[in-house]
Amino acid sequence: MSNDSAGPARSFPPAEYAARIRALLAALRRQRLDGALIAGEIARLYYTGIETSNGLLWVDAREGPVFFTDFRYIFAARRALPFMSCALLKRGPESERAMRRRAAAWRRCGYEGSQPAAAFARRKGLLERVSDWVDVDDLIGAQRAVKSPREQQAMRRALAANDGLLSVLLPQLHAGLSEWEIRGLLRREADRLGQGEAFDCIVCVGANAAECHHRPGRDKLWPNQPLLLDFGVRLDHYCADLTRCVVFGRPSPLFRELHRIVLAANRRAVRAIRPGMTGAEVDAVARRHIEKAGYGRAFGHGLGHGLGLEVHEAPSFAASCKTEIRPGMTITVEPGIYLPGRAGVRIEDVVLITRTGCEVLTHAPHWIER
Amino acid sequence: MSNDSAGPARSFPPAEYAARIRALLAALRRQRLDGALIAGEIARLYYTGIETSNGLLWVDAREGPVFFTDFRYIFAARRALPFMSCALLKRGPESERAMRRRAAAWRRCGYEGSQPAAAFARRKGLLERVSDWVDVDDLIGAQRAVKSPREQQAMRRALAANDGLLSVLLPQLHAGLSEWEIRGLLRREADRLGQGEAFDCIVCVGANAAECHHRPGRDKLWPNQPLLLDFGVRLDHYCADLTRCVVFGRPSPLFRELHRIVLAANRRAVRAIRPGMTGAEVDAVARRHIEKAGYGRAFGHGLGHGLGLEVHEAPSFAASCKTEIRPGMTITVEPGIYLPGRAGVRIEDVVLITRTGCEVLTHAPHWIER
Repeated sequence: MSNDSAGPARSFPPAEYAARIRALLAALRRQRLDGALIAGEIARLYYTGIETSNGLLWVDAREGPVFFTDFRYIFAARRALPFMSCALLKRGPESERAMRRRAAAWRRCGYEGSQPAAAFARRKGLLERVSDWVDVDDLIGAQRAVKSPREQQAMRRALAANDGLLSVLLPQLHAGLSEWEIRGLLRREADRLGQGEAFDCIVCVGANAAECHHRPGRDKLWPNQPLLLDFGVRLDHYCADLTRCVVFGRPSPLFRELHRIVLAANRRAVRAIRPGMTGAEVDAVARRHIEKAGYGRAFGHGLGHGLGLEVHEAPSFAASCKTEIRPGMTITVEPGIYLPGRAGVRIEDVVLITRTGCEVLTHAPHWIER
Repeated sequence: MSNDSAGPARSFPPAEYAARIRALLAALRRQRLDGALIAGEIARLYYTGIETSNGLLWVDAREGPVFFTDFRYIFAARRALPFMSCALLKRGPESERAMRRRAAAWRRCGYEGSQPAAAFARRKGLLERVSDWVDVDDLIGAQRAVKSPREQQAMRRALAANDGLLSVLLPQLHAGLSEWEIRGLLRREADRLGQGEAFDCIVCVGANAAECHHRPGRDKLWPNQPLLLDFGVRLDHYCADLTRCVVFGRPSPLFRELHRIVLAANRRAVRAIRPGMTGAEVDAVARRHIEKAGYGRAFGHGLGHGLGLEVHEAPSFAASCKTEIRPGMTITVEPGIYLPGRAGVRIEDVVLITRTGCEVLTHAPHWIER
């Protein structure tokens, strides 16, 4: 078995990251921020393209960023980031003094609400002249939500690899396999066709599909049972996500009915999507359809979520999401109906928002019989 | 290929978690805390034994805990936790009012410094009568560091599975394989013998081993090159960790010398370990040996770290660690020497601290030729 089809993750050329930094600086200035401290692992990857387990982007809204990272990554950082100052992050007071000095004039500073509370307390202590701390997670999330052309290509590649995974997996499935064994097959293919899984796959035989976050167990697949698979490879840092129900033998009339309703809800949402709609409005299209069919209470989650460097990112198709969707966003559409002890159906595609509507990036068939 | 040897993770009987909760309450009272809010995913798993992606342990130091979790997990929680109150966590003000009411008398409250800053700010706003917030990460870490007899058994099983992984992997290795391909073989065996990897494995051919956190790439294994492998399975929630250098053909005199020094440093540290020593004192034993051999500056990391539900937990064998080691702790011993562009050696075992010294739980041979 070889891994020829995939390999170590690759990054984009430096121009991509330089453009992201320019957009970040503009966003900080629009919020009248003097600067920001960005330490989250995914945010660092987004702005630098290199994976570091330790580092901090010190960003002055006018002068630009300095990337502090430790001895393990400093050489790689200097090579990869010709457009950015890089500084060695040392333990103890030396690096802290350097950051404090550079931020002497800051009064209004951005911070990540997602960072550990203890780390934030330390940084607050360091920059004691800052009077206003503003949570910039949403600002960064909004930037990351709109994918650049290179990112759209990466998403297409990840999603194509994932569709491919489903098609090589299907012939390996047969009655008698346990959920745990199917998980094993799926993970092996995810290693071969991508760089592993973007998230722990969900494998449900029969009525287990009625549990949204069922964990694969010892239950076996039997003839005439449906199988729900929810999985995604990671490829070059970007995440795929796909849910399909596979039918073995003759599905029950109830399963057929649920599948028909869920698929229609999925299609209605996809057809309705236009840039400028809020996430809540898109969610409502699918929800109304399922409610009219009498299963409103059995659709207990949002319609979808942004997808990119993370499996769940901004924006979401959910009643609580007031964000207007914009061209370049990649979002899942995944209505479902869950009847505990009886049946569960979810059908998930990924769409790219375009100037006139959306393009479905998922190409796996919606109805799969084996 | 079947996954008969491993399967879904199993938890301990309820008595184990009841004991952990009792110990937590005692520790909170010793710190004169009225209560604590515990929301971290691993801490929740530690105190409840069930995996939940959403939940909060509301712990009154006198009355005990209430586990708030959402509709996806509430039934499983009530089944698994007969000794603990469970409450449905709802969005919006209802659950918040319940928590506020229950904590009306709290003045001094524990919080996790590792939680997101924004989440902590919300919780602070909720319990506005609390005047003293105390970071309890160290308190929880100190409890988790000392493994119960059941946990020690789980660690033994995870480490034995990992030793087994190395022995089934070795016959599959041959010249011409790339680091990426070896990573693929390793991950497949980790799925078969455990529940996947506890962390992304490190695979380094030749001089790549001089980079401590090298990511597997396209470089191939050639005859007479050493191969460094650092990997660990996860089994029933517990993490293994093992580093070995494998020699193919004739290793260089430099490699032999480094290996001899590093192995002696490992053995000296293991022999020196006694409960009551600080992590810094144990680190110093190995460090002095490598310094005397002239490679002190080439050993740029700590000697080891606690291992359990997480790959890195308290305490550590490092100059900065003033914690006294105690019987029941499981800690890695992993000295290394790294000469960029030339060679790298690290030899990692896991020890269980006993009343008189330590027991080495790793049984893989130290010198491996193929």
